[in-house]
Amino acid sequence: MNDRPRPCSNPAMLKHNTYFEGGVQSVGFERNGRRHTVGVVDAGEFHFATDAAERMTVVSGELWAKLPGEAAFRPFASGTVFEVPAKSGFEVKALAPAAYLCEFL
Amino acid sequence: MNDRPRPCSNPAMLKHNTYFEGGVQSVGFERNGRRHTVGVVDAGEFHFATDAAERMTVVSGELWAKLPGEAAFRPFASGTVFEVPAKSGFEVKALAPAAYLCEFL
Repeated sequence: MNDRPRPCSNPAMLKHNTYFEGGVQSVGFERNGRRHTVGVVDAGEFHFATDAAERMTVVSGELWAKLPGEAAFRPFASGTVFEVPAKSGFEVKALAPAAYLCEFL
Repeated sequence: MNDRPRPCSNPAMLKHNTYFEGGVQSVGFERNGRRHTVGVVDAGEFHFATDAAERMTVVSGELWAKLPGEAAFRPFASGTVFEVPAKSGFEVKALAPAAYLCEFL
């Protein structure tokens, strides 16, 4: 049983997240007990640390990612997916704004 | 030539939109001169009017839509698409939070 305080009384509530002075923004939601976000990476290069593992699906445009243990960025076109292990991190960059779905695994 | 004032000096800037007291939220972006949003419809039923025509792609979960001229809601599963004519409107509902990509046509 988890008796820690729950800061959010409505688990279905949508949440706006903004990072890097607005260069990456997302809307978070929960379904079937799984956390997700959909968001946009503006043109630029950004570093994200992961707590849980994440599955990233590009839904519009193209993202480049440098994944843990990899030396270079690789392109991920719309419709493709990459996963990032827990307790790690990745670099992501976009040449033009690109949208993604992030599923926390 | 369009000489109207431009309220947004950086056309690539991402914009957070919130509707229905936060029940629908999105992040807007522009690429190749085309406006897009990615967002989430929380559980509930909502009406949207369209100015431009829109193509809606469900990217996570399931949305139900009642399109112009149709008498009933139809389900659109993740990966499916519906389009809405300009200067019209549609009803959308979700039984659980669902994410979409909206392209303004």
